[in-house]
Amino acid sequence: MTQRLDPWGQVKIEDYRKLFDEFGIESFEKFKNRFSENRYVRRGIVFGHRDFDKIVSAIDSKKPYVMITGLMPSGKFHFGHKMVAEQMIWHQKLGAEIYVCVADMESYLMRGISFEDARKIAVDEYLTNYIALGLTEKNLHVYFQSDYVVAYYRFRDSLSGKATLNELKAIYGELTPSKIFSVFTQVADILHVQLGGFSGKVPTVVPVGPDQDPHIRLTRDIASKLDLIQPSSTYHKFMTGLQGGKMSSSDPKSHIALTEDLPSAKKKLMGAKTGGRATAEEQKKLGGVPEECAVYELMVYHLVEDDKELLGIHDSCTSEGLSCGECKKVCWEKLEKFLTEHQVRRQNGKKAVENLIRIIQP
Amino acid sequence: MTQRLDPWGQVKIEDYRKLFDEFGIESFEKFKNRFSENRYVRRGIVFGHRDFDKIVSAIDSKKPYVMITGLMPSGKFHFGHKMVAEQMIWHQKLGAEIYVCVADMESYLMRGISFEDARKIAVDEYLTNYIALGLTEKNLHVYFQSDYVVAYYRFRDSLSGKATLNELKAIYGELTPSKIFSVFTQVADILHVQLGGFSGKVPTVVPVGPDQDPHIRLTRDIASKLDLIQPSSTYHKFMTGLQGGKMSSSDPKSHIALTEDLPSAKKKLMGAKTGGRATAEEQKKLGGVPEECAVYELMVYHLVEDDKELLGIHDSCTSEGLSCGECKKVCWEKLEKFLTEHQVRRQNGKKAVENLIRIIQP
Repeated sequence: MTQRLDPWGQVKIEDYRKLFDEFGIESFEKFKNRFSENRYVRRGIVFGHRDFDKIVSAIDSKKPYVMITGLMPSGKFHFGHKMVAEQMIWHQKLGAEIYVCVADMESYLMRGISFEDARKIAVDEYLTNYIALGLTEKNLHVYFQSDYVVAYYRFRDSLSGKATLNELKAIYGELTPSKIFSVFTQVADILHVQLGGFSGKVPTVVPVGPDQDPHIRLTRDIASKLDLIQPSSTYHKFMTGLQGGKMSSSDPKSHIALTEDLPSAKKKLMGAKTGGRATAEEQKKLGGVPEECAVYELMVYHLVEDDKELLGIHDSCTSEGLSCGECKKVCWEKLEKFLTEHQVRRQNGKKAVENLIRIIQP
Repeated sequence: MTQRLDPWGQVKIEDYRKLFDEFGIESFEKFKNRFSENRYVRRGIVFGHRDFDKIVSAIDSKKPYVMITGLMPSGKFHFGHKMVAEQMIWHQKLGAEIYVCVADMESYLMRGISFEDARKIAVDEYLTNYIALGLTEKNLHVYFQSDYVVAYYRFRDSLSGKATLNELKAIYGELTPSKIFSVFTQVADILHVQLGGFSGKVPTVVPVGPDQDPHIRLTRDIASKLDLIQPSSTYHKFMTGLQGGKMSSSDPKSHIALTEDLPSAKKKLMGAKTGGRATAEEQKKLGGVPEECAVYELMVYHLVEDDKELLGIHDSCTSEGLSCGECKKVCWEKLEKFLTEHQVRRQNGKKAVENLIRIIQP
C-alpha cells in the first residue's frame, strides 16, 4: 500500500529511506561535503531533496535564487522551529532572497486561530526569534496570507484551474472546501515569488519536513503547467518530543520553547526521556542508546557544534557508562548558556522585528 | 425529479411557477401595485423574490440598503443586459447603495477570458452602457473580483469553512476546484458589503435570473451562519433570443447589441422569429401569437413604456390581423430612435465612465 503523507495529520515516518523509493525524493548525501559547514547537512538531518542541483548552480554562479518557507502561527517557538530558522539563515548567507509566509489563513481555516492571535504569535514568537537567531533584514520579505498584495490573490485564484479534484484527492485524501483553499494558497505561496513584481523566474528552494512533500509535488506539477521553474525542496528529519513522540507546539511537555524560563527548561530537560537502561548496573555494562535519547538529540541538533565533542559524548554514553543524570547536567550547562544568551538577543532584536513588519510588502 | 438550476449551464425553464413550489421563491405579485412605475414589475417580468419585504421596509423607512449585481464580461451588451441595468437604476433611484462586481475571476476560471480582455469589455460595453442608460456615480461602487481590497479576499477565503463539499455538490452537481473558488467568490461578492468598512449590516438585494438562485440559497445559508442579514433577491424572466432559444452575448444572431449599427440592427429585427402564422390568410383569420414573438417581447421589455399602446399592438396582432412585416416596421421605428439616442448618450457618458473606474475602491 502506498504511504500517504498528510501535511495536516500526525506524522510518524519510521524510515525516511522509504521516501526515496516511494516518492522520488533523492538523498542529500552528495551535497554533504559541499555544505559541510551546516551541521544539519553534515549530520544527515537534512537528508533528502528534489532538484537541489538547480540551487547549487545558482549559488556557484552567484545567480539569484529564492528560499521560501511558511510559518504556522500556533503556540510557542521551540527547538524544532529553530532548526528551520537556521536553514533560513543558512540560505540567506548563501545569497538567497528570503520569503517568509505567515500561514495565517491556513491556521484560521485548518485550526480556527483568529487572524489577530496569529499575527501576535507570528511577531512575538517566530519573527522575533528568527532575528535573535541571526536572520537579517537584507533580501527578506515577510507577508501574511490574509494581508498581502492583490497580485498574489489573483494568481492564487487562477491556479485553481490547474488541478482537478481527483488529482487533489489522490494527493490529500478526503477534501473540504477549506482544505482546497489551503492547498492552492500553499501552491501560490511557493510559486508567486517567480512572478514579475516579486523575484521573477529564478530557482526557488523550500526546506520542509517530509509531511509537506504533497504540497511540493503538486506545486512542481502546477509550475510545469505554468512554464515556471519547478521549485526545489530539501527534507529534514523531525525532532523527537522530550517524552518521545512528536515535538509539538501544542504540547508544552514535548518541547522547550526558546522563551522558556530557566527553571522550567531545566525541569523539562531533567525529566526528558533518554536512551538509558533500567538500572545503573545495566547502564555500566551495556552502555546507553543515544539514538533513542531526546537529550542527545538536542545536542546533535542544537547544542554541540563540534563533531568531535559530540562523538565524545556519544562514546561516553555507549562505552563508558556515562549516567543519564551526569549527561543531562552537561547538556543543561549548554542549554542554560544558549537560552540565557538567546533571551538577551531577543530583547535586542525587538526593534528589528518592527522593521520586519514594515517591510511586509515585496 | 428535482429540477436543478445550473448557473453555468444553458437554461431553459419552461414554467417559472415551478420555482415557487420547488425552491421556495415567492411570487412578486404582492409588490406589483407598490412598484407599478417599473414596467418590469408591472408586466410580471420581475416575477419572484426572496425576502423582498426587508427591502420594502428599508425603502419605506428611508433606511440604507444595498443592491449588488455582478456582470460577466463576455461579448456585447445587449437588450437582456439592459433589463438588469434598468433594475440597478431603479434601485439607485429608490435610495440603494449600488455595488457592481465585475466577475472577471469567474469569467477567467469558467470561460478562460483574460483579465485584460475582461477589463476592456467591462468598461467599453457594460459600464459605458450603464451610464448611458442613467446609472449615476452617486452611491455607486464598481470593483473587479481580481483587483479589489484585501479585506474582500480575506473574507472570501474564510467563507470556505462555512460549507461542506457535500453541500456544494447538492447545490451545484459536479465540482471542480475552479468552480469551488467561483462559488465562494460569488458568496463573498454578495456578503462582503455587510462588513464594516463597506456598507455595514444593511439589507441587500440581488436581482437575478432564476438560474442564479443556487448562489442565493447558499449565500443566504452562509449569511445565517455568520450572523449577517440574509440577502434578499428578485427573479426576472430571461429574454428570448431573436431566433427563439436563449438570448446570448456569445451568439450575435440571438441579440441586438446596444452598440449595434443601424443597418445590422434592422436586418436582425426584420429576420427575427415572430408569432405569425404560416400564410397571410391564416394570419388574417386566426391572428398572430404575440407571446411567441421576439419582436413583441422587445417592445414589452424595452420599447413601449405605455401599457395602453402595448395592448393596442397586442390586440392588432391577435384580432386585426396586423402583419408581421407591418409590426416590425412599427418596432423598427422605436428601436431606431432608441439606438440612435442611446449611442449619443454613450458618447456623452465616456467621461463619467472614467470617473467610475476611479471610484473602484469602496
